[in-house]
Amino acid sequence: MTDTGRRRLGRPPLVENRRQSILDSAARQFAEVGFEKTSLRELAAAMGVSKATVYHYFQTKQEIYDAIIVDALRGLAVSVEAALDGVTGAEARLRVFMTAQGDFFERHYWFFVTMLIGLGGMHSADMRAEALLWRRRHEGTLRAIIRDGVAAGELRPVDPAVTGRAVLSMLNWMVRWYRPGGPQTAAAIAADYHDLLVRGLRPAAEPS
Amino acid sequence: MTDTGRRRLGRPPLVENRRQSILDSAARQFAEVGFEKTSLRELAAAMGVSKATVYHYFQTKQEIYDAIIVDALRGLAVSVEAALDGVTGAEARLRVFMTAQGDFFERHYWFFVTMLIGLGGMHSADMRAEALLWRRRHEGTLRAIIRDGVAAGELRPVDPAVTGRAVLSMLNWMVRWYRPGGPQTAAAIAADYHDLLVRGLRPAAEPS
Repeated sequence: MTDTGRRRLGRPPLVENRRQSILDSAARQFAEVGFEKTSLRELAAAMGVSKATVYHYFQTKQEIYDAIIVDALRGLAVSVEAALDGVTGAEARLRVFMTAQGDFFERHYWFFVTMLIGLGGMHSADMRAEALLWRRRHEGTLRAIIRDGVAAGELRPVDPAVTGRAVLSMLNWMVRWYRPGGPQTAAAIAADYHDLLVRGLRPAAEPS
Repeated sequence: MTDTGRRRLGRPPLVENRRQSILDSAARQFAEVGFEKTSLRELAAAMGVSKATVYHYFQTKQEIYDAIIVDALRGLAVSVEAALDGVTGAEARLRVFMTAQGDFFERHYWFFVTMLIGLGGMHSADMRAEALLWRRRHEGTLRAIIRDGVAAGELRPVDPAVTGRAVLSMLNWMVRWYRPGGPQTAAAIAADYHDLLVRGLRPAAEPS
């Protein structure tokens, strides 16, 4: 996750690193092998640490899973908001929202995959509430960009809910086909989608 | 699945009905409970038939799974093509493509959910090849609509691959949030996406 986002939430960086590497390793394992098929013992072995080390941070596999989902959603919301800082104009802000999410997805690929597979399967009600809070905040950022753009006459009077969902569908579906390290970055693909969505499919009207 | 599509492929309707009800029931079970957690015995019990009846059609749980995925992709491709029959103009054809997929998704919800979860997990190489063939055909239908529309000057010169992917992302992601029986049909949501995509986000130019 973005260090900025985490530190703001008051965890000391040293402890953070070890905890973070457990989550990184577990996210990949869950996404590739599946949650059911992964044991805490195997997670520890894959990281080259003892089970006791893992237990120092997390009591159960489910706790790790929940932490990955909360961290992914918080990291996404916080890093997109940071990217938007100081950017003005609805088109530009929408572009930054989309490319920053593409970028976050690429940098935290396994977190993102696990998160999109797993929100329904969270165990702790508190963690689930926190996850939903971050998700709502992220969606709220997007809808506000659209709503403000419509209000300012910079965008056509579209429905912020429908439009926001269309944007997130295009970005989230990347988890199903995009693999990091391909010919195009996830941010570049997000920029293509932005261009498509902003300009639409109709040919430009003839200048008269 | 659409009977039209199935019969064309030469299976007699009577056998088809029993086979179909096994697939319908299994699709729901796989999507709700998970493939790993479902046994052939439980599938038979849920349908109120003997295990022997199920075995008459399918030797393994994996065979059922593979058949669901092939049937879903074939049914989708065939029913969208049938809906497009006689429709002219790129905007109208794209609209029908999108709403027909929404409609198919709603009518065959559990098939669709299982299919979108499971293409990677297919067992039989032949069935996988057939599934990919139908998927490619469906994507090809969509890209041809866009390519022809661009060639005819009815659409802006967009990239058919990027645009096709954007369309399918919006439609496919519905599997993650849409539940049949809500306030809006899946086809109505698809029509909203179509409007958004065709008209774009920029306000109409001032008439001069």
